[in-house]
Amino acid sequence: MPDNPFIYQSRVRFHDTDASGRIHYIALLYHFDEAEAEFLRARGIGYTTIQDESVGFPRVHVECDYTGALSYDDLMQIAVRVDRVGGASFTLAFDATVDGKHKGRGKVTIACMDRATQKATKLPEHIRAGLLR
Amino acid sequence: MPDNPFIYQSRVRFHDTDASGRIHYIALLYHFDEAEAEFLRARGIGYTTIQDESVGFPRVHVECDYTGALSYDDLMQIAVRVDRVGGASFTLAFDATVDGKHKGRGKVTIACMDRATQKATKLPEHIRAGLLR
Amino acid sequence: MPDNPFIYQSRVRFHDTDASGRIHYIALLYHFDEAEAEFLRARGIGYTTIQDESVGFPRVHVECDYTGALSYDDLMQIAVRVDRVGGASFTLAFDATVDGKHKGRGKVTIACMDRATQKATKLPEHIRAGLLR
Amino acid sequence: MPDNPFIYQSRVRFHDTDASGRIHYIALLYHFDEAEAEFLRARGIGYTTIQDESVGFPRVHVECDYTGALSYDDLMQIAVRVDRVGGASFTLAFDATVDGKHKGRGKVTIACMDRATQKATKLPEHIRAGLLR
Repeated sequence: MPDNPFIYQSRVRFHDTDASGRIHYIALLYHFDEAEAEFLRARGIGYTTIQDESVGFPRVHVECDYTGALSYDDLMQIAVRVDRVGGASFTLAFDATVDGKHKGRGKVTIACMDRATQKATKLPEHIRAGLLR
Repeated sequence: MPDNPFIYQSRVRFHDTDASGRIHYIALLYHFDEAEAEFLRARGIGYTTIQDESVGFPRVHVECDYTGALSYDDLMQIAVRVDRVGGASFTLAFDATVDGKHKGRGKVTIACMDRATQKATKLPEHIRAGLLR
Repeated sequence: MPDNPFIYQSRVRFHDTDASGRIHYIALLYHFDEAEAEFLRARGIGYTTIQDESVGFPRVHVECDYTGALSYDDLMQIAVRVDRVGGASFTLAFDATVDGKHKGRGKVTIACMDRATQKATKLPEHIRAGLLR
Repeated sequence: MPDNPFIYQSRVRFHDTDASGRIHYIALLYHFDEAEAEFLRARGIGYTTIQDESVGFPRVHVECDYTGALSYDDLMQIAVRVDRVGGASFTLAFDATVDGKHKGRGKVTIACMDRATQKATKLPEHIRAGLLR
């Protein structure tokens, strides 16, 4: 895996905030989701590339720890890395910082599902290769 | 059309609010969207009922006027009525009140589209009937 | 803690779905968030009740396991229970089912924060009591 | 007003789509909202700049016409321009295109509200100037 993490830059939008004056906790996950899409694209395994009739990629787990307050207009640096590549799923990890201060860390586990059987199936080789390079 | 409007009750959620302390303006449209789904279901033309392979129902217009402030936990009464039934589209109108005070009014226009040609097509007769009863 | 879990009923909305045809994974968390609000209200410690100038309740952790597919219009039963009550935080647990089939389980940990110092502080006694009754 | 429109580039995200396979109509408004924030920032009247204790900027009207289908991963060019500057409100207009094809046009009207009285009040001069330059 590469020494230099992939960084996605994303701004806290007004609609991400709530009446507490800070980001609503769930909104951070959408920023991670966008970071994931750009990370996979950069690895050559973006959604539109890997989408075919036979397999789907449902999320089976998500988690997030909130380590600092995020406010409107904060410009986040979201580092994305491959946390684990299994036989039929993989996990990505995210760290959000603003001006070097840690704000949140998350993980999402994505399974590979056979659309016909709706059961877990082996990760296609080119996806595995894209994740491990 | 009926004398008694259809009323959908919906609560302003914390994630609907923003750092102004009030509802984020776009969030109200999701409440209207839910009211629409329940209104159409009550008319016997709910999405799952009318969905078939040949036609789709894209929204072609939405609008909303915000007439009063909405805050967290406000319990809205959303009145839904048929504003217009055309040959190939229809418009629903929404009014949101809290304790009798008007908070917002909106409209959405839904077209009937032939999935094969991606062009507007005649509203199916049972949908037209459901809207006009 | 009570033998009978608190149940919040919530419907998968069209805007909760994505182009996979199923619910977008993050959308389920909003349903848990609404279930939480109603659970706390039922315990007499709803947000508007407990809100005062001195303490806030930031979320410090969220997690969810997706155990079954959720589709548009599915009517979920979301069971909420107190998972843990600590000195300065508490954790709620959620289980979503549709027609008795398990679809997802989640947890959220809510800290009690002194607004002046922005540091964790002791849970107010009436909140602790509401959670433990 | 400038000859060259302000352009904000924004991508249709997977969570913006719905089970129709296209963008959910309301999701486009969030992209317009982000375009608005960047447009106002470019004019020197960004939210954080203009925010003070005495005035707020509630949205009083939003509308959108959907002129073409938007799909996952489409990269939109959103043109923003000042549509109208009134005494106590202003209207911005948005046009979204993908590869030169028109997809949607919207407007949002933003009022200037005195926080103390909760009534409409005169637009501050520097905001008026930023909009008209």
